[in-house]
Amino acid sequence: MSANHSQRRRQVASALRQRGLDSLIVTHPANWFYLTGFTGESGALVVELDRATLVTDGRFTVQAKEEARGIRVVLQKGGLYPALGEWLRQRGLRRVGFDPFQLSLGQWHALRKAAGAKCRTIEAGGIPEGLRTRKDAQELAQMRKAAALVGEVFESVLGLVCPGVRESELAAELEYQMRRHGASGPSFETIVASGKRSALPHARPTAKKLRKNELVVLDLGVILGHYCSDMTRTVYLGRAPRRIREWYEAVREAQAAGVAAVEAGITCGEVDSAARKVLKTAGLEEHCVHSTGHGLGLEVHEEPRVARGQQVRLQAGNVITIEPGVYVEGVGGLRIEDDVAVRATGNEVLTRVKRDLIEI
Amino acid sequence: MSANHSQRRRQVASALRQRGLDSLIVTHPANWFYLTGFTGESGALVVELDRATLVTDGRFTVQAKEEARGIRVVLQKGGLYPALGEWLRQRGLRRVGFDPFQLSLGQWHALRKAAGAKCRTIEAGGIPEGLRTRKDAQELAQMRKAAALVGEVFESVLGLVCPGVRESELAAELEYQMRRHGASGPSFETIVASGKRSALPHARPTAKKLRKNELVVLDLGVILGHYCSDMTRTVYLGRAPRRIREWYEAVREAQAAGVAAVEAGITCGEVDSAARKVLKTAGLEEHCVHSTGHGLGLEVHEEPRVARGQQVRLQAGNVITIEPGVYVEGVGGLRIEDDVAVRATGNEVLTRVKRDLIEI
Repeated sequence: MSANHSQRRRQVASALRQRGLDSLIVTHPANWFYLTGFTGESGALVVELDRATLVTDGRFTVQAKEEARGIRVVLQKGGLYPALGEWLRQRGLRRVGFDPFQLSLGQWHALRKAAGAKCRTIEAGGIPEGLRTRKDAQELAQMRKAAALVGEVFESVLGLVCPGVRESELAAELEYQMRRHGASGPSFETIVASGKRSALPHARPTAKKLRKNELVVLDLGVILGHYCSDMTRTVYLGRAPRRIREWYEAVREAQAAGVAAVEAGITCGEVDSAARKVLKTAGLEEHCVHSTGHGLGLEVHEEPRVARGQQVRLQAGNVITIEPGVYVEGVGGLRIEDDVAVRATGNEVLTRVKRDLIEI
Repeated sequence: MSANHSQRRRQVASALRQRGLDSLIVTHPANWFYLTGFTGESGALVVELDRATLVTDGRFTVQAKEEARGIRVVLQKGGLYPALGEWLRQRGLRRVGFDPFQLSLGQWHALRKAAGAKCRTIEAGGIPEGLRTRKDAQELAQMRKAAALVGEVFESVLGLVCPGVRESELAAELEYQMRRHGASGPSFETIVASGKRSALPHARPTAKKLRKNELVVLDLGVILGHYCSDMTRTVYLGRAPRRIREWYEAVREAQAAGVAAVEAGITCGEVDSAARKVLKTAGLEEHCVHSTGHGLGLEVHEEPRVARGQQVRLQAGNVITIEPGVYVEGVGGLRIEDDVAVRATGNEVLTRVKRDLIEI
């Protein structure tokens, strides 16, 4: 990937030139991985117009030299931000971009103090994130594999979903199978939410046992070769009563409408609205408490947001989730979620597990 | 735990009074859990002198009402920080404390804009963290269980550590056994680092197979009932050569010296130095690239830091790790780590797995 890494850094450099900056501080691990291949958890990358430097502590210097080819590695002594500021000062950088949402106020103060008065820090958010939204062919190939894997894992565990098993046992089994199938781990804490708990969109698995005549929401994703997948399916333990079937059909139709709308050029708000409109017609809009989806890639939540009123236009190479749901406090909830790659015309659904209500 | 929660909020209120603040914004999940019991991942808690309010979005409001007893829950619409600022303005709060290391510059700008000119935000970092360092009896009981569990998990998997098995397979098995034994998950990404890779203190498990005559560092922890444990043991596959034995004995002695130094009243720097001195005598100081330990509790890394020169004094109820190691680039590394609770006199080692070099 090192050819990709240097190409990406050149794209950053070109964005810097446009803004009259001489460098960019990259403080977010997914961003420095994207730009260098370094997988360490602590440090900061400084991208200049013609070079890049990684400042990190003794736990990560060997790893940084191994992973980040063509990058200078500077050993940080003392706190990261004082060390980084001191390095900026010595290097004589004067117009240093940074992302104001990826630097705490305290870190910013420490950095500026050490960098000295001649070094100006200038807000320049979202440069690597913007590049990351447009996946290249190699990234898309990896995301197809991550999406296929989460489907396999789901299907391998489906036989264990039955009354008497605990939410936490299913979550453990799902995450174990992810690893056994080659994932480096789950892309987020696996959700297994049953009965009334299925009305909590972000429920953590508990020791609660699944019971007959309950909804079970399974929301899971893997990290495979650094890229994430994210998929939700809903199971009913028994024969679903009419009301649940109606909710399910509405969510399924909303999800299909959302997916059908995905194409380069459309705004994220329009995709959100395509799904939401179906739920509104079914009288369920107030029960859909979250946005329709989110970008997906090196992180499980990244740009673009697929939410009400978002004016950002989809571009070929974006990968987003489409995941409408219905949640009724005290009763239960359900959700269907797929990963969708945007094409110039139409799209490619990466997660292929069938979307019928699963009655067990 | 709700009695504890309200007591903890009263302690925060008392710290606010001392600093002349009328409220504190709590933006870090471990802190709001400690003060309210809310386990959601997004939101902000505002602690006032006589009440507390949780601002969160629609994904978490049901959960917040269930978990955070005695707390007002405000449904956030739009972005969190504009909503929070607007709420502060309406509530008429004037001197609002916040932690500058837990609010990004961008969030702080958004908050201040919405809160209006009459609301001053004042840096007041570390108030909940300070309380969290002194574990109460209930917390210590839970941490003993988390430490016992990581030991059981380690011993249940030790039989699989042999030439031919992959680092990633061992990590998967360890994390699976954590869940099977009742943990909600690992407290950090399990480290299984073999051969030359053991020289990387924070190596991620790879597909590399373990081979005969290699060091294998296993660093793992569980989250049990929200509290973390963290333990490292080192295995040699075969009969360790003299040089490795010498390193091991030095690290073991350093670790024992670090543990022996732990007691209320001593500074964290003195504990670090007690361990480091042994490595220095053995001529290995330059190969110990990280600090001796860190606080442990709701988070796997929290206050206090057990590092060179730290002037913070240990207090009864602190729980810290003691984990010196030796890392030789291109050769390998080893580490021994235990969790230690500080007492008024002496200490209690929570992790009990034996510390001899394990030769397999």
